[in-house]
Amino acid sequence: MTTQQILLAAKAAAPSLLTLTTDQKNAALLSMADALERDAPNILQENGKDMQAAKGSISPVMLDRLRLTPERIKGMADGIREVASLPDPVRVLERMERPNGLVIEKTAVPMGVIAIIYESRPNVTSDAAALAIKAGSACVLRGGKEAFRSGFAIVKALREGLKEVGLPETVVSLVEDTTRESSYELMRAVGLVDLLIPRGGAGLIRACVEQAKVPCIQTGTGICHIYVDDSADLDRAVDIIENAKASRPSVCNAEEVLLVHSAVVDQFLPALKKRLVDERTAAGLVPVELRLDERAAAVIDGTPAGEKDFDTEFLDYILAVRVVDSVDDAIAHIAAHSTGHSEAILTRTEEHANRFTKLVDSAAVYVNCSTRFTDGGEFGLGCEMGISTQKLHARGPMGLGELMTYKYIIHGNGQIR
Amino acid sequence: MTTQQILLAAKAAAPSLLTLTTDQKNAALLSMADALERDAPNILQENGKDMQAAKGSISPVMLDRLRLTPERIKGMADGIREVASLPDPVRVLERMERPNGLVIEKTAVPMGVIAIIYESRPNVTSDAAALAIKAGSACVLRGGKEAFRSGFAIVKALREGLKEVGLPETVVSLVEDTTRESSYELMRAVGLVDLLIPRGGAGLIRACVEQAKVPCIQTGTGICHIYVDDSADLDRAVDIIENAKASRPSVCNAEEVLLVHSAVVDQFLPALKKRLVDERTAAGLVPVELRLDERAAAVIDGTPAGEKDFDTEFLDYILAVRVVDSVDDAIAHIAAHSTGHSEAILTRTEEHANRFTKLVDSAAVYVNCSTRFTDGGEFGLGCEMGISTQKLHARGPMGLGELMTYKYIIHGNGQIR
Repeated sequence: MTTQQILLAAKAAAPSLLTLTTDQKNAALLSMADALERDAPNILQENGKDMQAAKGSISPVMLDRLRLTPERIKGMADGIREVASLPDPVRVLERMERPNGLVIEKTAVPMGVIAIIYESRPNVTSDAAALAIKAGSACVLRGGKEAFRSGFAIVKALREGLKEVGLPETVVSLVEDTTRESSYELMRAVGLVDLLIPRGGAGLIRACVEQAKVPCIQTGTGICHIYVDDSADLDRAVDIIENAKASRPSVCNAEEVLLVHSAVVDQFLPALKKRLVDERTAAGLVPVELRLDERAAAVIDGTPAGEKDFDTEFLDYILAVRVVDSVDDAIAHIAAHSTGHSEAILTRTEEHANRFTKLVDSAAVYVNCSTRFTDGGEFGLGCEMGISTQKLHARGPMGLGELMTYKYIIHGNGQIR
Repeated sequence: MTTQQILLAAKAAAPSLLTLTTDQKNAALLSMADALERDAPNILQENGKDMQAAKGSISPVMLDRLRLTPERIKGMADGIREVASLPDPVRVLERMERPNGLVIEKTAVPMGVIAIIYESRPNVTSDAAALAIKAGSACVLRGGKEAFRSGFAIVKALREGLKEVGLPETVVSLVEDTTRESSYELMRAVGLVDLLIPRGGAGLIRACVEQAKVPCIQTGTGICHIYVDDSADLDRAVDIIENAKASRPSVCNAEEVLLVHSAVVDQFLPALKKRLVDERTAAGLVPVELRLDERAAAVIDGTPAGEKDFDTEFLDYILAVRVVDSVDDAIAHIAAHSTGHSEAILTRTEEHANRFTKLVDSAAVYVNCSTRFTDGGEFGLGCEMGISTQKLHARGPMGLGELMTYKYIIHGNGQIR
């Protein structure tokens, strides 16, 4: 089917989800999970073909992300069951009784059709479909071409589960065209796509900002900053920065830039270098490469930072370091260089903490802890469909609530105005 | 100043609003209101020039909208004072304490820079500025060219009020270029405009969907439907429809299309025609022109409806009438023709009401009352910046809460992950 046909079918099928009870929705999810496990042999076979085709053309890390095993499929099915156990996001948010007797209920309701563009991890296919169904929306999935056979086999299984409970299979679809054109088609499908979520690199996000005519939520890119204030607890600061930078450098909530108050550089930077470089090397861990501005380089050894080091999401064991003279300097640097994801201040001065949290314009602003907590699970949302770095509709980790729109349902008994 | 310079100045000034207390913000608003009244002579003089220039080129209705009087200026100032009295929308929305001791506060915070494109009513200039300031955002206003001198005089006064309390005047700006190009500049000002609100006709809204690269909220166009079910209280239905259609036909929440169940047409349509046409004519009121589909025309006299009558926002004493055979037919017609603003079902069958409220995908869905209630004041929001017909971020009447974004502010004491 063409992408347009798939979108039309999804739009036509979406209303069938609007009249389901919570129990019926959960039954559909459990049926999808069971079908996924039952179809594991076929999914593994198709995944094997994807692996074979991708070998040599993608990195070993990417190849590992692409690989499915019986355990991983079991994990995907359990993930769907977990979504079934979450509270139904369709609910009355606010109830107002007006003096004229009108009862106004602001009610969270499904979006309609949610399209998701993502890369090669096959588990995203089942995760995204499960969240969309729980949110009462049909979904149109556009995965990476490396994972197409795996994705197709997964969607085939999920659709069998849907059919078994009497739902139209077109509430979950995978786009068949894996060229770039299908992403653009989704971005331009005004009236057919109610929400587009691009999950991917900076290039995809930029293309969406430039091209999308449908409602879109930008996710992901994180140039996260930690600012060490002159009153920071420096011992804790070393722990926090090692965690934020080196516990999992490939994720979007990892720290990329360190800002240090000039009053504490002489004491702090040597301690930091000792921990991030010397001790990690001695312990057989990957050391962190420090890219230092001139003032930092006057205190410790490291790589001289180029200007673009302060505008790069390294996703690697690399940390750009700049010396600043005040909390306001740190705030100004962040305003000029941040992607609006997560930033932290380490300080014992309440006034500085307040100024930082008020003036830094990012989804998550931390005081005295690691930036690594920006995550649906860590925030207690129970699940996550990505991390929004935009200000409209959803910001930060997106759970089920952020996949909903709302409408006002008003009951009267003849009121006129 | 060029539009670009105005935007840069607004962006630079916006943070000055982030650190204000509620009292400081309210003091600024009261100072703006006082300055507006004090400058009334100048504003009236400039408005006179606008009126003189517009005479002959715009309709008498538009000319009346453009006209300012001392009373209208007093009303604008009082409007600003009312905004000052509303609760501060900067507030903690949710507070979560996590097992690891992190305290996560989901906090409503200002957008930054809000741009508003509107037409010729000068009072929108002060209303929009007041709401933006209360919401903690700088605003860039782009009014109609007919009202430019009036708008400029109003903004001059508001800025004097801002200066008197020590705020930068560039938190409120009026775009000087009144050609279409400046609207497009606002739509494309990625990084400078955090939220764009176009308030105007269908052409402007379409241009925004097509052109806007900044976050945008579509407002306004309302092709509102009322469906009279076979179990409706038909006497009440006549009252409700007269109110929805004829109490103020020029507004977006007025009814444009009537759908009637075939089982009641013989009884209902003659009663409706009697009220909307015969009795209104006899009482010296403007009668409603009924544009009837074939089945309705078989029952009463009226104008034969063309197909586009069911896709037109008349904003006039015109009502398109179609006969349908079930609540599902009515829902399908609305899905195909509605702008997603406001729709109503008149019924005494609870099952039909539930089906209608679940399946109709509009901002406000009414049971047994007029569509005219879709309004910030009627919903108890205290104010209104327009009515959103989109599903992302805000839907229906937009009060102060809908002019905000949120961020997560997280306090820790050394937590790492």
